[in-house]
Amino acid sequence: MRIADRIGRLGIETAFAVSAEAAAFAAEGNKVYSFHLGDINIMTPSNIMDAAEKAMRGGKTGYCPNAGIPQLRELLAGDISRSHGIDYTMENVSIQTGGKPVIGKFLQALMNTGDEVLYPNPGFPIYESQIAFQGGRALPYGFVEGKDNFKLDMDAIERQLTPRTKLLIFNDWQNPTGAECSPQELEKLAGLAIKHDLYVLCDEAYYDVRYEGKSVSLASIPGMAERCVILYTFSKKFAMTGWRLGAAIGPRDIIDVITRLNVNDESCTNHFLQYAAMEGLIGDQAPVRQMLDTFRARRDAAADILNSIGGVRCFRPNVTFYLYPNVTGAMERKGIDDLDEFRVALLHETGVSVCTRLHFGRALEGEKDFYLRLAYSGIDIDEIREGLGRFKAFVEG
Amino acid sequence: MRIADRIGRLGIETAFAVSAEAAAFAAEGNKVYSFHLGDINIMTPSNIMDAAEKAMRGGKTGYCPNAGIPQLRELLAGDISRSHGIDYTMENVSIQTGGKPVIGKFLQALMNTGDEVLYPNPGFPIYESQIAFQGGRALPYGFVEGKDNFKLDMDAIERQLTPRTKLLIFNDWQNPTGAECSPQELEKLAGLAIKHDLYVLCDEAYYDVRYEGKSVSLASIPGMAERCVILYTFSKKFAMTGWRLGAAIGPRDIIDVITRLNVNDESCTNHFLQYAAMEGLIGDQAPVRQMLDTFRARRDAAADILNSIGGVRCFRPNVTFYLYPNVTGAMERKGIDDLDEFRVALLHETGVSVCTRLHFGRALEGEKDFYLRLAYSGIDIDEIREGLGRFKAFVEG
Repeated sequence: MRIADRIGRLGIETAFAVSAEAAAFAAEGNKVYSFHLGDINIMTPSNIMDAAEKAMRGGKTGYCPNAGIPQLRELLAGDISRSHGIDYTMENVSIQTGGKPVIGKFLQALMNTGDEVLYPNPGFPIYESQIAFQGGRALPYGFVEGKDNFKLDMDAIERQLTPRTKLLIFNDWQNPTGAECSPQELEKLAGLAIKHDLYVLCDEAYYDVRYEGKSVSLASIPGMAERCVILYTFSKKFAMTGWRLGAAIGPRDIIDVITRLNVNDESCTNHFLQYAAMEGLIGDQAPVRQMLDTFRARRDAAADILNSIGGVRCFRPNVTFYLYPNVTGAMERKGIDDLDEFRVALLHETGVSVCTRLHFGRALEGEKDFYLRLAYSGIDIDEIREGLGRFKAFVEG
Repeated sequence: MRIADRIGRLGIETAFAVSAEAAAFAAEGNKVYSFHLGDINIMTPSNIMDAAEKAMRGGKTGYCPNAGIPQLRELLAGDISRSHGIDYTMENVSIQTGGKPVIGKFLQALMNTGDEVLYPNPGFPIYESQIAFQGGRALPYGFVEGKDNFKLDMDAIERQLTPRTKLLIFNDWQNPTGAECSPQELEKLAGLAIKHDLYVLCDEAYYDVRYEGKSVSLASIPGMAERCVILYTFSKKFAMTGWRLGAAIGPRDIIDVITRLNVNDESCTNHFLQYAAMEGLIGDQAPVRQMLDTFRARRDAAADILNSIGGVRCFRPNVTFYLYPNVTGAMERKGIDDLDEFRVALLHETGVSVCTRLHFGRALEGEKDFYLRLAYSGIDIDEIREGLGRFKAFVEG
């Protein structure tokens, strides 16, 4: 088979391999505690499903405009304008089949071959894959353990900035670490972006997945809206991961290019489901609050047990539905010095299925500690307690 | 704004501009007869909608596998195996958000920079756009008027074959001409593909949109299945254009790469709608037959009137829902020698909105005649008669 050269640069999400391993282990009759995938085991709110049905039965089954239906674009522009303090109109919004398509389209729209792009590592693995696939140079920046949470390694960003650096991928409310920038850090980052004329992908998939306070976007810092494209998704906020509904939001010239990519790639996003997305934005928000209450209880249960395990320490981030415990000490206790070996042993001896740091990129130079990533979006609190109890016994027993 | 260089090579579908013009003309209070877009003004069969609702309410709202749900892949593999006489399994099927995504993904999977790709012109404009965008060289081949229908210009294909020619895009049951290859032509084409080691995109969007006889795929010719990727879509057969459901079907190695592109581009296609697609394949086929009866009546009404117009001649293809009349004589009668000027005059003086040959690529060298493309999928028979009656009066009056 004569596959094109570029495919050699295309990565994958190795987390899917963990799913397959977990499924195989379960198929052998073993109990599995699924912490590995950021999917949600809560139903999409029924008012959103009602709206989907109404639009479908009402005949919204033909093509819609490439950028999405104007009503949804307008609503979303209004919603983001209010939350971000930016004056967006529907011309700033292009509806996509999920948040993920915004990553590749942002790079196709703005990155030339050989351009350098800063991206978070550990981070969502598609960033690095798409940068390399589209012919760019991927420069990783990491995170360091702070007092209460992980902190962006700002030095790593500054150190790598050169005239060839054109783009920054930024994922505040970060997957996998749960890191969130302080206002000071956002100011600093904005200053660097403006000084070095960087365009920024603000991956805001977890903007609304927070338990206290209010998210502040990098795009909201003065001078930044004109150089930021926001990756928006309905997936996490409304428990709609499998619906595939998201949007690119940013400067009109870039959004026009992104929509032109839609013309070429998929014509448009499903027509009638966009009415469901509208209902998500304007309908009853009680189910959203309820879901966050559920997530918070899961987070606390999971973090409590993890922190009670000898050789494990775990922050309790106020955002995302992930925990990123440092398990260096636990691995020492078990006499295991390979992170993936530890993961597999944990799965096979306890049924607890997790991802590790290595599913979010190669370890950076000088990185000595070992981390797991646990998603608590898809597992009930009783199972969390039972599974992590076994984890504790595995390490301490 | 600093847009990437590659965007300069990215085309559009100029037919969307015709939609906008028609909408503007209608907004001024004018009656418009919409023949310009290949959308369908018939509802999706209700059993398909029932299945979508059942799966959605049943909680199929989370992520599904990147290549689609196994049940749908298996069903579709069986369906295409039967119709094509090829032994496909689910490993040969990757579900996509429509048929269109298969074009770009086929090229990304198999085309290197500078590779030459043969594509039909007139033809679906995204072929040329994606070839150029992904760094290939687009070589057009045309169609010539035969006795009863258009014929592939086989000479144009043979003439342009060089060692640099790596891929062939082939759209039997062709948009816009309605051309269909004879068994002899398919044999000839297969021989060329095998001799020159070409991989082929078989765009089979209109495979099932036929009024008599049975479609025979180029992929079914011995030796071809291993070098053909079939673009399959639920859009036309089941009146599901706005649902965005399709598939790539072909050799497993290529399908694996296409699915890896899905991992990077959009994760997966909407989960619960794939159950609706299954119902399309296994449910009551009466609505499909009914739709074809409706289309056939529209075709005959439209072709009859067009052929009665002085200076217009029009084939009556057995496939697709398009007519591609030669209007060279009619333009002479009107004293108009610019095709787009003729289209605009037709719209403004009669309300009949059509695309022209130029919405399907630049005219080829030596191409002297002028053609329009009329889609009859989105307009009822009474409107067809009324609109084309006005067309006749416009030309002959």
